[in-house]
Amino acid sequence: MATRFEVLVAGPGPARVGRLSTPHGEVETPALVIVATQATVKGLTPEEVRAIGIQVVLANTYHLYLRPGPDLVARLGGLHRFMGWDGPLMTDSGGFQVFSLGSALEHGVGKVARIFPGLDLDVPRRAVKPRLVTIDDDGVTFISHLDGSRHRFTPEKSIETQEKLGADIILAFDECTSPLHDYEYTRQALERTHRWALRCLAARTRSDQALFGIVQGGAYRDLREASARFIGSLPFEGYAIGGSLGRSKDDMHRIIEWVVPLLPEDRPRHLLGIGEPEDLLAGIARGIDLFDCVAPTRLGRHGAAYTARGRLNLRSAALKDDPAPIEADCDCYTCRRFSRAYLRHLFNAGEMLGPRLATIHNIRFLQRLIEGARAAIRAGALNEYAADFLASYRTGATELPG
Amino acid sequence: MATRFEVLVAGPGPARVGRLSTPHGEVETPALVIVATQATVKGLTPEEVRAIGIQVVLANTYHLYLRPGPDLVARLGGLHRFMGWDGPLMTDSGGFQVFSLGSALEHGVGKVARIFPGLDLDVPRRAVKPRLVTIDDDGVTFISHLDGSRHRFTPEKSIETQEKLGADIILAFDECTSPLHDYEYTRQALERTHRWALRCLAARTRSDQALFGIVQGGAYRDLREASARFIGSLPFEGYAIGGSLGRSKDDMHRIIEWVVPLLPEDRPRHLLGIGEPEDLLAGIARGIDLFDCVAPTRLGRHGAAYTARGRLNLRSAALKDDPAPIEADCDCYTCRRFSRAYLRHLFNAGEMLGPRLATIHNIRFLQRLIEGARAAIRAGALNEYAADFLASYRTGATELPG
Repeated sequence: MATRFEVLVAGPGPARVGRLSTPHGEVETPALVIVATQATVKGLTPEEVRAIGIQVVLANTYHLYLRPGPDLVARLGGLHRFMGWDGPLMTDSGGFQVFSLGSALEHGVGKVARIFPGLDLDVPRRAVKPRLVTIDDDGVTFISHLDGSRHRFTPEKSIETQEKLGADIILAFDECTSPLHDYEYTRQALERTHRWALRCLAARTRSDQALFGIVQGGAYRDLREASARFIGSLPFEGYAIGGSLGRSKDDMHRIIEWVVPLLPEDRPRHLLGIGEPEDLLAGIARGIDLFDCVAPTRLGRHGAAYTARGRLNLRSAALKDDPAPIEADCDCYTCRRFSRAYLRHLFNAGEMLGPRLATIHNIRFLQRLIEGARAAIRAGALNEYAADFLASYRTGATELPG
Repeated sequence: MATRFEVLVAGPGPARVGRLSTPHGEVETPALVIVATQATVKGLTPEEVRAIGIQVVLANTYHLYLRPGPDLVARLGGLHRFMGWDGPLMTDSGGFQVFSLGSALEHGVGKVARIFPGLDLDVPRRAVKPRLVTIDDDGVTFISHLDGSRHRFTPEKSIETQEKLGADIILAFDECTSPLHDYEYTRQALERTHRWALRCLAARTRSDQALFGIVQGGAYRDLREASARFIGSLPFEGYAIGGSLGRSKDDMHRIIEWVVPLLPEDRPRHLLGIGEPEDLLAGIARGIDLFDCVAPTRLGRHGAAYTARGRLNLRSAALKDDPAPIEADCDCYTCRRFSRAYLRHLFNAGEMLGPRLATIHNIRFLQRLIEGARAAIRAGALNEYAADFLASYRTGATELPG
């Protein structure tokens, strides 16, 4: 088998500490998977990612399929070698782009609808951009966002592409629905996703890659449970929870609670595309083993830094004289070496080093949070750990220092 | 004295190997000074700059005066601490901006006029942008390129600003003329520069900073020689050659040959703003000890990499399958870890890591060239070393691989 997964410590509740072994090394879980969309964690070298403590990286099949292309990556020895990352590596299936380039643009929403605060969810959406994607029962036809060229993904094509890229863990090709899709559409999409899951399993040819199935079903309990039972019954090496996670964090928590108990206990569970600090803790407490999210890198590029009290706006004039690091007790390279005043200067002056240093801090912040959660599970004190963190952490809006 | 300079090996000809000792460490000369305009070598950490072998960095007083301001830098412990560079550090005087924001924009030329190939040098220039600078005998009034605010630099203000920044080596405030200024204007500007040099010496208050004087005089032999004699007679800890270096590389070489023999042998000589590979070798052979240039970082950001055969365009489609590093025998991080194909992908995909990796290579390329020149001087074989290099290196235009 391509990967082995062991649960080392279980409880309290569904939370657990585990070890995922891949051909390129081990991942302690719960783990943060850092996103390397175009075969690079934006701005960082592989050595920097490793030094932060990150053990596994996820690249996007859609992007790499379009540029530089899976055949080129294969000729150059596969994605590990191409990008210089010799640790555990994942690719997604490209299916999420069905959502992010099709329905998400059309509906103007993300994975959790409420993240767009002004949006009235009861008003039917009109397309805000031309639909770039058409879905049929066999696959998906889409228009490249790069050059307008026409492409088609099917389950077989996704697996073939991911086999050429050669990651350690690959994902089944699914249809990811929007929070605004109704029950009937979500049900039809789910049935497609289930048929596609079987085709993915049939299409795989590499024994050195783990294939994770994806549970869909939107925010509908019966659909999520049916999907967890069906996908969970198939011989995947791991299971991901994808698609719409409802209209609120509460919805997201409920969806995880419906799904996790129905998945095999001896396989890793990945919550796709979620990774704000409070979401990591909520997911871990509910039995999630793996998370991936662009938030730490994206926020860092835009000058927002995680702190134990909430986000810090690194462009704020309030920092201009501040000799302190982003966080006094942080062990990241940025906090060991540079002041808030210097970071503010870098962002203010448009210097590349600013996004890089903020990204390093943000990833390390989440990595430390996860490392702490693992220790807390081992100590039987996860709830206390989460409560402590959330008592000072203010979610969402960027905070000023003080 | 703030710095000590020893000539360790002299010859053949004016070339020499030396050691410049500063309060923040030693610099072996000839040396490449890497530019950190806004208190950061664009995209790199101080540790990366150090790992490349760079021993001394130059920040721009004009930029730091405007943003974040010298008082703020001083409050935060000075520029070394602010930017996290604990090695030898220089600042320029701000005087170059008299040129680069005033005459250079007006004339549409750089330090060596011929670098703008289409320019007819005999046609009188009209202003191409509104003049942002006015010069009088006391100093310079200029408009900030950031916000249009009005500022004034005098020799005293430049020294005060550089003392607040706190570099190990600071530069006298001078007027930098354009290759298109006529003899009479160049002579008047030179006289101002000489009076300002005396005022800079009188204004300095810190004994832990070395102050370098600047020789001006454009491409006019009598002016350059008069300036070298006058500035060389003043008690500066080092001497820089600034201003217009003529209309061709030959002009530049002649100017160095006029000036260097008239400067004190026991002090370092810095050729300001020059640093293409062939220029380094030409300068070293003519007795230059220090060079600074934005070329390696600027070219790197724009996807051009130095190689022993000339520049390589990292965006070129010809590299898309190329598994080789930029240079097989280069010991830089980039060449040890990544292929041309990957670098081409990074530039093609607009990823930040591309400029960073190309910058590392370019700086290391020039640093190796200089380290080789030092070894060649010690071996009495500088001419052969330079001839070997220039036999394969094609200057100027970016080359394709092959």
